[in-house]
Amino acid sequence: MDKQIIEQLFTQLKEKTPLIHHITNNVTINDCANATLAIGGSPVMASGIAEAGDMARLADALVINFGTINNQMLDAMIIAGQAANQKEIPVIFDPVGVGATAYRTEKALEFLKAVNVAIIRGNSTEVYSLLGGQAHTRGVDAGEIDIPLEDLARNATKSLKAIIVISGKVDVIASESSIAQVGNGDILLTRVTGTGCMTASLIASFAAITNDWFHAAIAGMATMSLAGEKAKASLKEDEGIGTFRIKLMDEISKMNDQAWIKGVRIK
Amino acid sequence: MDKQIIEQLFTQLKEKTPLIHHITNNVTINDCANATLAIGGSPVMASGIAEAGDMARLADALVINFGTINNQMLDAMIIAGQAANQKEIPVIFDPVGVGATAYRTEKALEFLKAVNVAIIRGNSTEVYSLLGGQAHTRGVDAGEIDIPLEDLARNATKSLKAIIVISGKVDVIASESSIAQVGNGDILLTRVTGTGCMTASLIASFAAITNDWFHAAIAGMATMSLAGEKAKASLKEDEGIGTFRIKLMDEISKMNDQAWIKGVRIK
Amino acid sequence: MDKQIIEQLFTQLKEKTPLIHHITNNVTINDCANATLAIGGSPVMASGIAEAGDMARLADALVINFGTINNQMLDAMIIAGQAANQKEIPVIFDPVGVGATAYRTEKALEFLKAVNVAIIRGNSTEVYSLLGGQAHTRGVDAGEIDIPLEDLARNATKSLKAIIVISGKVDVIASESSIAQVGNGDILLTRVTGTGCMTASLIASFAAITNDWFHAAIAGMATMSLAGEKAKASLKEDEGIGTFRIKLMDEISKMNDQAWIKGVRIK
Repeated sequence: MDKQIIEQLFTQLKEKTPLIHHITNNVTINDCANATLAIGGSPVMASGIAEAGDMARLADALVINFGTINNQMLDAMIIAGQAANQKEIPVIFDPVGVGATAYRTEKALEFLKAVNVAIIRGNSTEVYSLLGGQAHTRGVDAGEIDIPLEDLARNATKSLKAIIVISGKVDVIASESSIAQVGNGDILLTRVTGTGCMTASLIASFAAITNDWFHAAIAGMATMSLAGEKAKASLKEDEGIGTFRIKLMDEISKMNDQAWIKGVRIK
Repeated sequence: MDKQIIEQLFTQLKEKTPLIHHITNNVTINDCANATLAIGGSPVMASGIAEAGDMARLADALVINFGTINNQMLDAMIIAGQAANQKEIPVIFDPVGVGATAYRTEKALEFLKAVNVAIIRGNSTEVYSLLGGQAHTRGVDAGEIDIPLEDLARNATKSLKAIIVISGKVDVIASESSIAQVGNGDILLTRVTGTGCMTASLIASFAAITNDWFHAAIAGMATMSLAGEKAKASLKEDEGIGTFRIKLMDEISKMNDQAWIKGVRIK
Repeated sequence: MDKQIIEQLFTQLKEKTPLIHHITNNVTINDCANATLAIGGSPVMASGIAEAGDMARLADALVINFGTINNQMLDAMIIAGQAANQKEIPVIFDPVGVGATAYRTEKALEFLKAVNVAIIRGNSTEVYSLLGGQAHTRGVDAGEIDIPLEDLARNATKSLKAIIVISGKVDVIASESSIAQVGNGDILLTRVTGTGCMTASLIASFAAITNDWFHAAIAGMATMSLAGEKAKASLKEDEGIGTFRIKLMDEISKMNDQAWIKGVRIK
């Protein structure tokens, strides 16, 4: 990834402090708000259906997260999503747990039919399920699928007409014309809740200030994976996942273009 | 502020462990519960409409926070607020994001019409919007307004018949007869979510054990600003906003009358 | 408690990574998800009524927590609980705040009538209230009751047909045939929110991988009390409850059979 692109993304993010509206789950909503602040965005987490459209119209990007989806929430998400489409701000969709229950898959497809999303970020089974695949998923964790992640990402980007970000041991980011892989990360990122959700917030923060959503997606995804790697590296022997979570947020807030360029391993 | 007043407030708070009922947003609800515990109160965060009145009647103060307001929540807030009025316990109102959407402003005014509030705590644009002003607000952050904060606070306290607390670089606390300014704080308090919400919990904890709500408001507001200053001062170079949040809670839990008197700068 | 039992519980928990479904309050939901991960389980926190049954059928244990109970939530809890009963996975019930309002007590009894629960974890007044006792409860904290905890636990286990866990200065765990007391803990566990809720998640994680729910309950309860003791012991003089919470999570994530056997004091 071109050094200048990432420099510009960080510079503009700090300058513009984009407003990132979230309609998200109540498990990691605090983490998402703080991650947005940490990278330089301004989070709004309003969820009332009566103001869903108005709030999206104030925002520079919209994050939709299915973690604790229900029918009422979906209605607000569609209203907000359509307002975002009208304003032409990017919608970042995090299909948490899709594939785990028939309800989730059905509602995710309903959302994707009603709203044009710019970027979808999920784990492999979530993305697989959006394409109609039957993965052995267990709750919100990635299950086993039988095709390479790059192929899955390429298929998904064509079929779903969105940039696809698949978080995993190696993260894959695909657009119709390009594909990138991020080699950073640490297993501890799967041992605390919210790292996926926060990644969507980071991606949204970058996507809010550019039209180049492919590179925004790489910037946000790699920020999380690199921050996780750095948090782990600074963890002392007697510290556990409580401290890891705090150091992860520290690393996100300390991230800048230089640290990113020095640390991120893309192929 | 008289030394004896603050000594008495801290002493009585520790002795009485007042019950602080909250109906609040799901972003910072955990922070508010922990801040209440940290200062010496006992938090209750029940939100079901069927018990809203009963729970308020058990409490010593009620915090109403509009962060993730919706119609159902407003109904519960009004029931709880009216029960609090009947029991003559103070209602602390945090009009989060009011001014950002027409819905929020309208519902806030509806709430203020139905319930007598003792103390309103907000940022400048939120308070300005309650008075009918059109501020350039962006989501939940303070926007630009064109009158001095002291004048805004004085106008608001008269018009809204409540103690007014405006959080900012300098915090302003106004009653009909008095005004105070707190010079403590740190920019990092705006870089993590929940510091405003937690301030309302701290104010409520003090207001629950006295009839002198003006000084309770100063005590709570200054506790947050001083804790933020201290948390920042103890932050090491390689630490970020994750650690700042933890140290902020540490400082709240370590606060006492002596530290308060020594550290707080009031004019 | 037999050394072999606890060794086996930890070994099987790490091997099986059981799926722990929660329908819980929005105050400590993040803490519960992270505590489940920390001990080696996999949390799911879906709350939508439309998938409540399906999600419970995917799970290995179900945690039901009444912290922010409302009528809609209760419906989802009953559907999930009945699905769990059909699948014969354990239901762990945390009757938060029962006794504080008539609504809570009534709804708790309604839940217990509709669903067979394996384990009930509460403080003394919550358990007392489930038996029809009138305790002087204040919100979610334990009030005063007039019978010894062991008798309360024995009565409750017979009457409610469930393993009973009463958290307190000494924790009491009772089945119809056995009773155990855990002498670990620290007062700081009552100064942060969520330690009770997280205990239910820990108990559920152990109960998910054995039919010996009595020992699973001891394992989970004692893990929390010992972790609290260790977190307190490692707290420096200038640290407060913010850091305590983080160290508590660290200690849960570092817990294993050897540390448990060495540290836990059972009689």
